[in-house]
Amino acid sequence: MRRKIRMGMVGGGNGSFIGSVHRIAANLDGQIELVCGCFSSSYENALATGRELFLPDDRIYATYTEMIEKEALLPDGERMDFISIVTPNHVHFEPSVLALEKGFHVMLDKPMTFSLDEAHKLCDKVKETGSLFGLTHTYTGYPMVKEARLRVERGDLGKIRRIYVVYPQGWLSEDVGNSNKQASWRVDPKRSGKAGCMGDIGTHAYNLAEYITGLQATEVCAELNTFVPNRLLDDDGVVMIRYEGGARGMLAASQIAAGEENELSIRIYGEKGGLEWHQEEPNTMILKWNDKPKEIIRTSTGWMSSTAAHNSRVPGGHPEGYIEAFANIYRNFALALRCILNGEKPKPEYLDFPGVEDGLKGMQFIETIVASSASDTKWMKIIK
Amino acid sequence: MRRKIRMGMVGGGNGSFIGSVHRIAANLDGQIELVCGCFSSSYENALATGRELFLPDDRIYATYTEMIEKEALLPDGERMDFISIVTPNHVHFEPSVLALEKGFHVMLDKPMTFSLDEAHKLCDKVKETGSLFGLTHTYTGYPMVKEARLRVERGDLGKIRRIYVVYPQGWLSEDVGNSNKQASWRVDPKRSGKAGCMGDIGTHAYNLAEYITGLQATEVCAELNTFVPNRLLDDDGVVMIRYEGGARGMLAASQIAAGEENELSIRIYGEKGGLEWHQEEPNTMILKWNDKPKEIIRTSTGWMSSTAAHNSRVPGGHPEGYIEAFANIYRNFALALRCILNGEKPKPEYLDFPGVEDGLKGMQFIETIVASSASDTKWMKIIK
Amino acid sequence: MRRKIRMGMVGGGNGSFIGSVHRIAANLDGQIELVCGCFSSSYENALATGRELFLPDDRIYATYTEMIEKEALLPDGERMDFISIVTPNHVHFEPSVLALEKGFHVMLDKPMTFSLDEAHKLCDKVKETGSLFGLTHTYTGYPMVKEARLRVERGDLGKIRRIYVVYPQGWLSEDVGNSNKQASWRVDPKRSGKAGCMGDIGTHAYNLAEYITGLQATEVCAELNTFVPNRLLDDDGVVMIRYEGGARGMLAASQIAAGEENELSIRIYGEKGGLEWHQEEPNTMILKWNDKPKEIIRTSTGWMSSTAAHNSRVPGGHPEGYIEAFANIYRNFALALRCILNGEKPKPEYLDFPGVEDGLKGMQFIETIVASSASDTKWMKIIK
Amino acid sequence: MRRKIRMGMVGGGNGSFIGSVHRIAANLDGQIELVCGCFSSSYENALATGRELFLPDDRIYATYTEMIEKEALLPDGERMDFISIVTPNHVHFEPSVLALEKGFHVMLDKPMTFSLDEAHKLCDKVKETGSLFGLTHTYTGYPMVKEARLRVERGDLGKIRRIYVVYPQGWLSEDVGNSNKQASWRVDPKRSGKAGCMGDIGTHAYNLAEYITGLQATEVCAELNTFVPNRLLDDDGVVMIRYEGGARGMLAASQIAAGEENELSIRIYGEKGGLEWHQEEPNTMILKWNDKPKEIIRTSTGWMSSTAAHNSRVPGGHPEGYIEAFANIYRNFALALRCILNGEKPKPEYLDFPGVEDGLKGMQFIETIVASSASDTKWMKIIK
Repeated sequence: MRRKIRMGMVGGGNGSFIGSVHRIAANLDGQIELVCGCFSSSYENALATGRELFLPDDRIYATYTEMIEKEALLPDGERMDFISIVTPNHVHFEPSVLALEKGFHVMLDKPMTFSLDEAHKLCDKVKETGSLFGLTHTYTGYPMVKEARLRVERGDLGKIRRIYVVYPQGWLSEDVGNSNKQASWRVDPKRSGKAGCMGDIGTHAYNLAEYITGLQATEVCAELNTFVPNRLLDDDGVVMIRYEGGARGMLAASQIAAGEENELSIRIYGEKGGLEWHQEEPNTMILKWNDKPKEIIRTSTGWMSSTAAHNSRVPGGHPEGYIEAFANIYRNFALALRCILNGEKPKPEYLDFPGVEDGLKGMQFIETIVASSASDTKWMKIIK
Repeated sequence: MRRKIRMGMVGGGNGSFIGSVHRIAANLDGQIELVCGCFSSSYENALATGRELFLPDDRIYATYTEMIEKEALLPDGERMDFISIVTPNHVHFEPSVLALEKGFHVMLDKPMTFSLDEAHKLCDKVKETGSLFGLTHTYTGYPMVKEARLRVERGDLGKIRRIYVVYPQGWLSEDVGNSNKQASWRVDPKRSGKAGCMGDIGTHAYNLAEYITGLQATEVCAELNTFVPNRLLDDDGVVMIRYEGGARGMLAASQIAAGEENELSIRIYGEKGGLEWHQEEPNTMILKWNDKPKEIIRTSTGWMSSTAAHNSRVPGGHPEGYIEAFANIYRNFALALRCILNGEKPKPEYLDFPGVEDGLKGMQFIETIVASSASDTKWMKIIK
Repeated sequence: MRRKIRMGMVGGGNGSFIGSVHRIAANLDGQIELVCGCFSSSYENALATGRELFLPDDRIYATYTEMIEKEALLPDGERMDFISIVTPNHVHFEPSVLALEKGFHVMLDKPMTFSLDEAHKLCDKVKETGSLFGLTHTYTGYPMVKEARLRVERGDLGKIRRIYVVYPQGWLSEDVGNSNKQASWRVDPKRSGKAGCMGDIGTHAYNLAEYITGLQATEVCAELNTFVPNRLLDDDGVVMIRYEGGARGMLAASQIAAGEENELSIRIYGEKGGLEWHQEEPNTMILKWNDKPKEIIRTSTGWMSSTAAHNSRVPGGHPEGYIEAFANIYRNFALALRCILNGEKPKPEYLDFPGVEDGLKGMQFIETIVASSASDTKWMKIIK
Repeated sequence: MRRKIRMGMVGGGNGSFIGSVHRIAANLDGQIELVCGCFSSSYENALATGRELFLPDDRIYATYTEMIEKEALLPDGERMDFISIVTPNHVHFEPSVLALEKGFHVMLDKPMTFSLDEAHKLCDKVKETGSLFGLTHTYTGYPMVKEARLRVERGDLGKIRRIYVVYPQGWLSEDVGNSNKQASWRVDPKRSGKAGCMGDIGTHAYNLAEYITGLQATEVCAELNTFVPNRLLDDDGVVMIRYEGGARGMLAASQIAAGEENELSIRIYGEKGGLEWHQEEPNTMILKWNDKPKEIIRTSTGWMSSTAAHNSRVPGGHPEGYIEAFANIYRNFALALRCILNGEKPKPEYLDFPGVEDGLKGMQFIETIVASSASDTKWMKIIK
């Protein structure tokens, strides 16, 4: 199959944020081309956006239903191969299911759905169709996060005991009203779902800890807070987590951490050593030891694992960032999809992107911590 | 009074750690001289230690009782002015009370006592005698911590909403048996008290947060863990804290954080801005703002407050460390004591060292989190 | 013109490094599409490379001469709009001139040419044809570098006095023989030119200092060294620089700085303040002041200049890296080229990419420091 | 000898800076006691200073001549054992020689003398008397600097090739007039000597590089600059250095680097690895390798060398700073002096402090770079 993988997009019209990031991420490695889209509920905006993206007018659709149905009728090699859905949370489930039913593969922004119930249904649908499904938990796309996972998996740190994952942002410190398009739907329970901050970024932190350690949470004790007056959803919270096998986690996320940009960090300690990684300086991971000097592990250096190397593009000292991490999800998805379209079995490293199970766990996390926060009982089992 | 303040010491014999730190801290500014001591329960060690410190044999005592009683009989200007007690926790209360009763001022290592009950009694005794009492919560001695307190107090950050204070160490990652003198008593409930890690370093973190913000904790939800097999006390824990006025705190401390040295850090966010400080690089504090660049506040720079300036000794860029922070407690204590001995009222900046109320709060914290950790109820009011 | 800008490429076959970076950079913003290429002097490699890039066989050429001549005959909108030349230094001049003569716009890797003489001729040819010409001095593509330039230009730092620009790498610490394709031509005077390390990375450092300060060097005093036995070109050097108006520069570059990745950094001091920037953590610039706290300027924060904002893609705290900086050169080039193709005047911010004059200065720098290093006279005027 | 070592001081009256640092450094380890001093050319200031230091009036002298002569007549155990001279550079030589001639040991601030001629004479006098002589090149007192020296000495980095040592300060960015006592004599050739910035801090940088590498400079090429109008001495400069055996150094020092505090840093590269150390964060040294991860070497960690351990006081993660580094010089000097007074041979680690040969080399450095800067010849041999 000597052509690029063909992508259609739902959402991401002019004025949105994450849609353009998805497109850049899809462009980067030259494996994917955008062939159609319905970029906005406003057809005017959709059309303007599509034209700026050099799409012909007949591939710019007014609704996702129209797009999915019409594309399904196009011949192979012309129609989109997969759909990328970058809308607010309440418009995740329906287009995903429709696309899956029409035989398309799906890339979806996180959190996966509006509710846990939808998540279960989507999970079933993905399994039923056997389509490829990706979820953009971007932060696991970083080479150093993959290296961290490998180091834990092969036992460098020993049995894991303690996890700290902290994710402070400051951009919702004040009431944003309707002035900020990104902000307004995130603080609206009708579009965001049961959780605000915890759904938006807490799920990233939760996913990151599980991705690196491979541990499953069993119980949580949470407090969610709403600091900004009149806000309807949490804008801050702390969760104590018990993992299977006895490890303990502390997850803190906040969107009222004034002055913070996007300071997701994680520290993990095992019986033999520890590690630390900060998203804002993502090419460095520190390994810590009780009996020898700390080590600075860096993206693209010669002694990095092949997994991490597969997910970087330039030599050490040439920093790779958020867009590259995002692109790793798209690239691996595209590499796997190409195998599938060619009737081949994808290599394991191609399948290293977040999927529907990760999305389900994220929704279980939201469901459980919201319940925990409202409860007087200390520990609550993860709601399945 | 043209002479140095005269100090006697209980504990700190050869082989101990914190005793020599106390002596260095007391030496540093040339305000205090060591005149006597009972440095060890082994008289042989006490004698050897005292001689190495250039004390005459008749001022090296076999027991603290003997020392306090004999010194009390010496003439003014010859006898010690205050006693510094640097023994394990179970030998804090008795010598403190005895010294206070004999008219001596007291400097005591933390946590203040073995039990909350002792703490209350010591508190009463200090008030009853009117003596000067200091407690070495070292970390509030740093100039940047004092600057942080000032910034919060004058409202730079706005009303405080969220506190993260995290204190990981790795030195107790393994069973230390009896090989490490510092470690062995800390993990022994008969000498350390109800809490291990939380008593040793959790109290520092708790004190630091209260010192900077001026906020009082009202309720906690804690989980204490013991990871090392056969250990009898906690070696790790997380505490969610509710402060008066609605602020929320997350305190994590661990002594099984493999590879960590002494990485106490604090982040505080208010309605208008945030701050971050790390003990391992103590001369830098970052102020964070939503509407302008982050600022790097540094020890001894010209625009630092007079409070912070009072607690530093050399120009900016000449790093001051742990010993200087420790010495700030001794220096302020000595400056205040000199005023008192001269019949003068100490300046406010001289009284800026941790005292008996801080010690009491620390013991209340220990009492409460140990109870909370054992309870199924989520929130527990601070036990007074 | 509702289509992407069309790019052809010379060099960048499988096994090369910088070619794929150019392609990624060109892909990123969805403004450019690769339509043809002659990727290698081996047609087999060229063909394999082109096919992996989804090019049709008839747009994969055996030589750049063939490509330029045949593309020139294609109709507008089908033929390439510009050529990207990513070959070793000795194959920069001829394809550039040929492409310019055939009416193509040119993007060229640095250093611009093999010799100063070629540089002058190329400069003349660019002026003669009026074509758009870009040179990939990547490091000026970073948002923080653009912010730095703006801050200096508007006088924030006052009159510039002192510049330190240091660029250590370690990858040529040992004799690389022929095992490393990137390394082997760089250390070969027949392919690299008069300078090794100084041509490869010294020119970047020199360009960076001039870009930020706007100052022109007038005299230099250089020592170039060759540490690895049998190496024919410099692998290390220091240059003292005198700038017009009295500023002084110190430029150090090394490729035998064992253990360094790509640690280009610059510090600039004026009468009122200073700045510091490190390429390995490129989203942070420190501004330094004598009379107030240092400030941390960060990519994509709200108070950044519009120039820097134009050159970033994601919100603050979402790190952008080397690829994005590289892409900024391509994007601005493409935006400018689109204006030209549309008969419009490019906006000033579109023309903010390195050009032929920068390339000429780089070659003058190489010519002068090589002469200076061989001379007993201390100061040498820049050879024009 | 069961008493502290007894110190007299010349200079360091109220209003001076470095004198109080010397006293704090001498106090810190409880090995030294101040017994007398002539602290100022103003007797009034001297008396006030001495009284604040709890000295009896009869040990507060009006002149250093008086002090040295009178102390020499006091009985052993009462008179000072050594003299600490902390005056401006033009008052270094005479009191040193007088003290040596009267049998006292000497600790002297740097640079050693006003002129190279004085340095040679002082060198001869020290050798003639056999007295102990220390020079406070503080920065070699840091544990990590000692560790660096050891690592280079034992060959970890391989043969040294390249040294960068950079020392920017900003405090003399403007004309300080007479308002700043520290500044005014430093910029006055009658009190400071031939060099300003280079004498004050350039010598520190030069000494640091030689201390760590053990290499001797053979030739230099220097440019010294004076940026502040009407200043008579250099306030900035760069020196290219050739070391014996082929290593190359670049030394930059500046006191007009606006916004810098005291940012001395050094990077050293050998055939096998590199190291980096920054004075402002002195407890961390980075080791860099081409074939494995960078390592973070930290003060007081278990795997540090015994040499470095001897020069630290508290466990890892308890930062030690400038004062402790300074105190290491005093402590080693005192430990060596105690051995000498006891008729014992000092241990090698006690003699690890800068001495008269280091001082001589510093003066040779000043002499040579001033000449080099004024010369049109590129390379100048170190003037002996």
